Amino acid sequence: MARPQIDPDVVREELFQAAEDIIDVRGAITINMSELAAACGMSQSNVYRYFPTKEAFYEAMAGRWFAPFIAAMEEVVSSDLPVREKLFQFFARRLMLKRQRFEVNSQLFQTYLEIGDEHWEVIRGYIDLADHYMATIIGEAMNEGYFAGLELDDALSLVNLMVQPFVNPRMMIDMERTATDANLALVIDAIFDGLMRKKPASANGETRLRVAS
Amino acid sequence: MARPQIDPDVVREELFQAAEDIIDVRGAITINMSELAAACGMSQSNVYRYFPTKEAFYEAMAGRWFAPFIAAMEEVVSSDLPVREKLFQFFARRLMLKRQRFEVNSQLFQTYLEIGDEHWEVIRGYIDLADHYMATIIGEAMNEGYFAGLELDDALSLVNLMVQPFVNPRMMIDMERTATDANLALVIDAIFDGLMRKKPASANGETRLRVAS
Repeated sequence: MARPQIDPDVVREELFQAAEDIIDVRGAITINMSELAAACGMSQSNVYRYFPTKEAFYEAMAGRWFAPFIAAMEEVVSSDLPVREKLFQFFARRLMLKRQRFEVNSQLFQTYLEIGDEHWEVIRGYIDLADHYMATIIGEAMNEGYFAGLELDDALSLVNLMVQPFVNPRMMIDMERTATDANLALVIDAIFDGLMRKKPASANGETRLRVAS
Repeated sequence: MARPQIDPDVVREELFQAAEDIIDVRGAITINMSELAAACGMSQSNVYRYFPTKEAFYEAMAGRWFAPFIAAMEEVVSSDLPVREKLFQFFARRLMLKRQRFEVNSQLFQTYLEIGDEHWEVIRGYIDLADHYMATIIGEAMNEGYFAGLELDDALSLVNLMVQPFVNPRMMIDMERTATDANLALVIDAIFDGLMRKKPASANGETRLRVAS
C-alpha cells in the first residue's frame, strides 16, 4: 500500500514533541536520533529525510522555541506605538511569553536553558537578532532626543544592563517576585527620563559621579 | 616541651588557606575536616577546638569572604558623600572587590559561588545585611525628594532590578565588557534622574506606559 501523503510540518512537530518528552523526563541530555525515530514509530532514515543531521534538528528546535519571540519583536518594532511604549512592549511581551512557558512546565523550561547553554552557537544568532530590533527602537528614541550625548552602542549596552532581570530567563526566575510588568514599566520610564550622558557639573551645578578608572 | 602559645587567628587563617587550596584543586566539594587537619599538620581534635562543627567552619569561611564587602558598605553608608555618590560607591566598591578576586583566581571565585549556592542559609544573612545598608541610602535619597511617589520597598526593588549586572557575581562575569564603573555611574544617574512613579498622564501630558495586569 502506498504511504499516504503526510504534511512534513506535522511530522516535524511530532519529532519535536517526542524530543521534548524525552528531555522533560531525562533532562538536558544529547538527543539520540534513533530513539527519537522509535518514539515516533519512524525509521531512522526517514527522520534523516527531515533533519539530515543532529545539528539541523537542534537548530530547528531552537527556531521553534524562538519563533513567537521573533513574531512579537517584529510586531512591536513595526507598530505605530510611541517609542517609549514600544521599548516597554519589546521587553514585556517576551517576558510574558517566557513566564507562560515557565508556568506550563518549569522543569522543561530550565532544561531548554541548559540545552541552549550547550548549543550557544545556535542561540547567538537569536540574541543578535533581538539586539538588532532593540537598536532600531533605541535609534528611534534617539531621533526623538532621548539618551542625549550617548552613542547608539552605549545606549544599547546601558538599556541592556538595566533590563537584565526582565530579559535573562534565569534572572527572571530568580527575581520572579519583582521582575514584573509594573516594575518593567517604571524601569523603562527611568531609562527614558534619566539615561543621558551628563553635561559637566560646572554647567548645571549638579553633583556628578566620579569614576576612578 | 610545652606547646608554644599560638595566635588562634593565625591558625584559623591557616585552615582557611588549606581549605581554599583544596577547593581550588578539587572544585566545590564538601570539605573533609580530617583532610583539612592533615593539610595543616594538626590533629582533627585540635581543628575542632577552633571550629566545633563543619557548619561553623563554613560560616567562618563565609565571614572571611564577606568581611571586606561589609567594611566597604559600612564606610560608604557612614560617609558624608552626597547621596547619589553614596549609592554609586555602594555598588562600585563591591564591584571592584569582586573583579579583583575574579582576576586573581577566576576558578576559585566560581567555586566559591557554587559553595555559596550549596550553603544558601549562610549567604542569606549577608544579602539581608546588604539590603539593609542599601535601604539606609535609598531612605536618605527619598528624604531629599528622590524616587517621588514610591514606597521605600518599591524603590529598593527597582534599584535592585536595575543594578543586577553590577551586583550579581555571575552576571558580572557574563557582562564583563559592559558592567563597568563608567556604566554603573550612568545607571545610577538614570535611577536618580528618572526613577519615580509618574503622575497621571493627564497631569503632565506625557505618554505613560500601560501595563496590562
